[in-house]
Amino acid sequence: MDFASLFGLVLGIVLVVGAMILQAGGDMAGLIQFVNITSIMIVLGGTMASTAIGFRINEIVRVFTLVKFVVTKPKFMLYELVKELTEAAEIYRKGPTELEKHLPNVKSFFIKDGLTFIANGIKYDDLKTILLQREKFRYSRESHESDLIKTLGTFSPAFGMIGTLIGLIFMLNNMGGGAEAMGNIGPSMGVALITTFYGSLFASLLFNPFSEKLKLRNQENSQAHQLMITGILLIWQKRHQIDVQDQLTAYIEPKDRLLHFKDEE
Amino acid sequence: MDFASLFGLVLGIVLVVGAMILQAGGDMAGLIQFVNITSIMIVLGGTMASTAIGFRINEIVRVFTLVKFVVTKPKFMLYELVKELTEAAEIYRKGPTELEKHLPNVKSFFIKDGLTFIANGIKYDDLKTILLQREKFRYSRESHESDLIKTLGTFSPAFGMIGTLIGLIFMLNNMGGGAEAMGNIGPSMGVALITTFYGSLFASLLFNPFSEKLKLRNQENSQAHQLMITGILLIWQKRHQIDVQDQLTAYIEPKDRLLHFKDEE
Amino acid sequence: MDFASLFGLVLGIVLVVGAMILQAGGDMAGLIQFVNITSIMIVLGGTMASTAIGFRINEIVRVFTLVKFVVTKPKFMLYELVKELTEAAEIYRKGPTELEKHLPNVKSFFIKDGLTFIANGIKYDDLKTILLQREKFRYSRESHESDLIKTLGTFSPAFGMIGTLIGLIFMLNNMGGGAEAMGNIGPSMGVALITTFYGSLFASLLFNPFSEKLKLRNQENSQAHQLMITGILLIWQKRHQIDVQDQLTAYIEPKDRLLHFKDEE
Amino acid sequence: MDFASLFGLVLGIVLVVGAMILQAGGDMAGLIQFVNITSIMIVLGGTMASTAIGFRINEIVRVFTLVKFVVTKPKFMLYELVKELTEAAEIYRKGPTELEKHLPNVKSFFIKDGLTFIANGIKYDDLKTILLQREKFRYSRESHESDLIKTLGTFSPAFGMIGTLIGLIFMLNNMGGGAEAMGNIGPSMGVALITTFYGSLFASLLFNPFSEKLKLRNQENSQAHQLMITGILLIWQKRHQIDVQDQLTAYIEPKDRLLHFKDEE
Amino acid sequence: MDFASLFGLVLGIVLVVGAMILQAGGDMAGLIQFVNITSIMIVLGGTMASTAIGFRINEIVRVFTLVKFVVTKPKFMLYELVKELTEAAEIYRKGPTELEKHLPNVKSFFIKDGLTFIANGIKYDDLKTILLQREKFRYSRESHESDLIKTLGTFSPAFGMIGTLIGLIFMLNNMGGGAEAMGNIGPSMGVALITTFYGSLFASLLFNPFSEKLKLRNQENSQAHQLMITGILLIWQKRHQIDVQDQLTAYIEPKDRLLHFKDEE
Repeated sequence: MDFASLFGLVLGIVLVVGAMILQAGGDMAGLIQFVNITSIMIVLGGTMASTAIGFRINEIVRVFTLVKFVVTKPKFMLYELVKELTEAAEIYRKGPTELEKHLPNVKSFFIKDGLTFIANGIKYDDLKTILLQREKFRYSRESHESDLIKTLGTFSPAFGMIGTLIGLIFMLNNMGGGAEAMGNIGPSMGVALITTFYGSLFASLLFNPFSEKLKLRNQENSQAHQLMITGILLIWQKRHQIDVQDQLTAYIEPKDRLLHFKDEE
Repeated sequence: MDFASLFGLVLGIVLVVGAMILQAGGDMAGLIQFVNITSIMIVLGGTMASTAIGFRINEIVRVFTLVKFVVTKPKFMLYELVKELTEAAEIYRKGPTELEKHLPNVKSFFIKDGLTFIANGIKYDDLKTILLQREKFRYSRESHESDLIKTLGTFSPAFGMIGTLIGLIFMLNNMGGGAEAMGNIGPSMGVALITTFYGSLFASLLFNPFSEKLKLRNQENSQAHQLMITGILLIWQKRHQIDVQDQLTAYIEPKDRLLHFKDEE
Repeated sequence: MDFASLFGLVLGIVLVVGAMILQAGGDMAGLIQFVNITSIMIVLGGTMASTAIGFRINEIVRVFTLVKFVVTKPKFMLYELVKELTEAAEIYRKGPTELEKHLPNVKSFFIKDGLTFIANGIKYDDLKTILLQREKFRYSRESHESDLIKTLGTFSPAFGMIGTLIGLIFMLNNMGGGAEAMGNIGPSMGVALITTFYGSLFASLLFNPFSEKLKLRNQENSQAHQLMITGILLIWQKRHQIDVQDQLTAYIEPKDRLLHFKDEE
Repeated sequence: MDFASLFGLVLGIVLVVGAMILQAGGDMAGLIQFVNITSIMIVLGGTMASTAIGFRINEIVRVFTLVKFVVTKPKFMLYELVKELTEAAEIYRKGPTELEKHLPNVKSFFIKDGLTFIANGIKYDDLKTILLQREKFRYSRESHESDLIKTLGTFSPAFGMIGTLIGLIFMLNNMGGGAEAMGNIGPSMGVALITTFYGSLFASLLFNPFSEKLKLRNQENSQAHQLMITGILLIWQKRHQIDVQDQLTAYIEPKDRLLHFKDEE
Repeated sequence: MDFASLFGLVLGIVLVVGAMILQAGGDMAGLIQFVNITSIMIVLGGTMASTAIGFRINEIVRVFTLVKFVVTKPKFMLYELVKELTEAAEIYRKGPTELEKHLPNVKSFFIKDGLTFIANGIKYDDLKTILLQREKFRYSRESHESDLIKTLGTFSPAFGMIGTLIGLIFMLNNMGGGAEAMGNIGPSMGVALITTFYGSLFASLLFNPFSEKLKLRNQENSQAHQLMITGILLIWQKRHQIDVQDQLTAYIEPKDRLLHFKDEE
């Protein structure tokens, strides 16, 4: 489980709510004034509605299933991919039959698919085109998902402001003259501002950080796939496992390079 | 019909109007104060006027006919394109005459045009240049359309602010001293803020989401055309239908790959 | 004449002024309060001054002569360029002397220059380098012009705010206590806000749309020049006019392709 | 001397100060209220401090020596470079010794360095790599300088707002109740707003325009260096001076092309 | 030690605090009203929480260890790298054994690794791929770090505004009518604004400048690595040390070129 995301979300909520309780003088009941049903309707509803216009319905559904990925560990450990590819390179030099026997032991789906193509005797250029195109497709789809959440984060404060404008216009239009009016301005304006508060909070604590997270994850996946494509193509060329390892370790941190591969060189 | 766009638009309007009715205490007549003819003149009129300066008249007309496309289904089902191209590859290996006979059965206009060039014996480089240039032209024209709607979404809040400034200046200049003045500030300012409200609402619920939608559609069209160009060029090379399918399925989702093509491999 | 730009500008002014008259209760004399000499000094003057710092004096002069271009028709009709180039291709296949005789009939300056190089027997790579570089130079110069107008649109609201700040500071500093002060706040603040109004209006109705227009025109010119360069290079290669037409029609709309070229194929 | 920059700066200051005097009713002594030592400390000091964190001390020093460049003429007249390079091409065709004799007459440092390499018999690829790398280095260094001034323009309004917040918080915290308080709000708030005024003015009239100016100058230098690199490489190839001139004039305005080179063709 | 960063940070704090003391009339105790525990909780806490969601926990930890790098000198002196590489080029021309003996004298880790590959007889393309990939990996990791700090600088003013909204809503909701209410508005609003002040100050004086600093450092490292890669590849080619020096000095300032290398040419 990805501790940072969950920790960040819980910490953020605890701090903001804690600060609110502190300001209410420790009176937790005072928080009830921050619960406002029309504000939630406008901010969450409006944001979802606008995003639904710009994207497809099935994409919005998928994003919510993505949440479980966001709080899980990175999908690929780069040094394990290097080991898996180096091993396959060694085996393929013994012959395609050996490679075919080895296939069920390969854990990564993408590597297994690539090695199957090699065992079936695909041409080099075809293999390269197919692998690059699959990765390009994956990259554009995942970028699209983080764009969707980014869009939620853009519309959220906009609808916060729209809700506040509605509240202000009602308040100002219904405002009579005299001292009584002055006394009503305060609470009405407070209610109007709650929508702005919701819009900013959802954007800053939810949509924008999770969009960043997905972008980061996409970059990591991209690095992993570049490593795997380079490795698979080197295996096709029947390069020696030492050369394969030298090239693939350039994709990982110097620290990991020393830790996992120094003894074998 | 593209359910998401229509659903989003209706949902957004229902939520915002619903929140307004709730705030008016269920009094639907209270919404009448949000109808303001000068606000609409300034926001919608000003936005259209500024956009008309920057674009051509026929483009603005076309954008409004685009609305019907926005609420329709995606133009291309990628796996059907793969099937159509694989089939054509199989037929062309029997000879150009067979391909020419097959042409009337081809549904996609772009593929048909490409296959006609092949049947007429075009050079490979010429074919590639023509197909890429046509796609480049289509892409730039569709980008231009989503840019136009994006521009509407940029000018809309700007004219909302201009309208509010006009209202504020009138109110402030005509404001006398004393208690009576204090009583007038409220309603006058409420009216002035309505223009800002319109400007934000049109941008957030209409122009910006539909611009996103067109951008998304352009990306999807772009992927479909890249698939078709790759396919047509492979057909020219008389590649075997298995190879064509292997390469083209790299352009579609792994899920669709398993569903539509696994049994045939 | 480019109807859209002129129409948009006039429409925008009519709508904004009309809305102001409506708000003044039909009293056109009420508009006089929007005329403020110091506001114009600060917004227009400051904007021009800041832009003059960042650009060269002759560029700013040229931009104002550009206005006449902005309201004129597109410079190039793409299908006419295709016809002119196809014709030249047919003639050059008869020999360089025929081409030289044909030169005075060529309307487009850029095509004529290219054909002159061909008639003089230039090397292919030299021709390509020269044409691409000339287009690159034209593109960067025209981009620079639309950047200049964009800069006017950026500084304009900034100086609007600066003017309003000056007005506010004077008002606040000279404000005494008591009821009389309250009565003075309104009109003084109204005057201060006029500068913000000017800054926003000039940016939204003048500078930003005209910058968009120039950017659009540059893109159109760019497409036209790419078409011409491709055509001139195909003519050098003595390609058949049918091939030249096939390749060049990829640069124009499918609609125009069917309308102007279908019968000749 | 570059008239535009100096003219713009003086014009901007005259207009803003003039508008302030007009608003003060011609009373120049009224301007004294805009002089505020803490505002200058926060805006100029804070901006410099933040920029000093992000850049190196020697870069900030260099930027201030750059000021003298900003108000000087363009460094390169493109048509003179074309003439110098065409002349060198003619001379080198007579032999490397002739070129070496000609070297002291070459005015441009970059061209002289390139011709020296040629006279010393450098390989073509080495020459190309060295010239391109030197230009790339120059470009990235000058971009960095305009980025530095751009950064000043970003921090300046930010510290303007920080200063105003400090003033507001003091004012609000020390504000008692009653009518006396109302009378104090005005002047205290006026003083607080002066910092915002400084922040905006420095950004809009000083930092942002001069950053634009440096960016423009870098682009011009870049074009000049591209011209020189193309010319030097053509000279290495011992191309005829007519060809060199044909290619290099593609880097200059058609107007200059006709003016300076038409008679020689 | 990098004087500029430390100097800038200290200068900024001194100026802002100094201006605050001046405004408090020299009364340092007046600064106590700027210390507000809930404001710090919301701004610093919320910013860290949101950033923790978008990044990994170990990255956030590493950023704080980065602080020590930010205040240290540049890692590479470019002219020393040129000297080290020129020397290695001279030695390798004597033979691989000589190079191997020389390896312990090489100071830069990256150069030593490259020379080790050469001494082991690596193929040219493999060497190039490995070096470029290692540099690409380093670049993307360091970019990621400056992005993280940039994210802190984006969330900081957002949480400043959220904190102020919380304060305003409490104040407005609890505000009764009458003159007493007017007297309470001031101090309560002052407290609410402190959070905005914190958010702006942390962004402008801490997060944004240090993010700029890291970006600058990454660019410098990138230039150094490009120089080293070019040098190592030239050494593989057994190029003469004079040629190596000519090419590598194109990566350094003309001033340094004249100072360190003129006498040796």
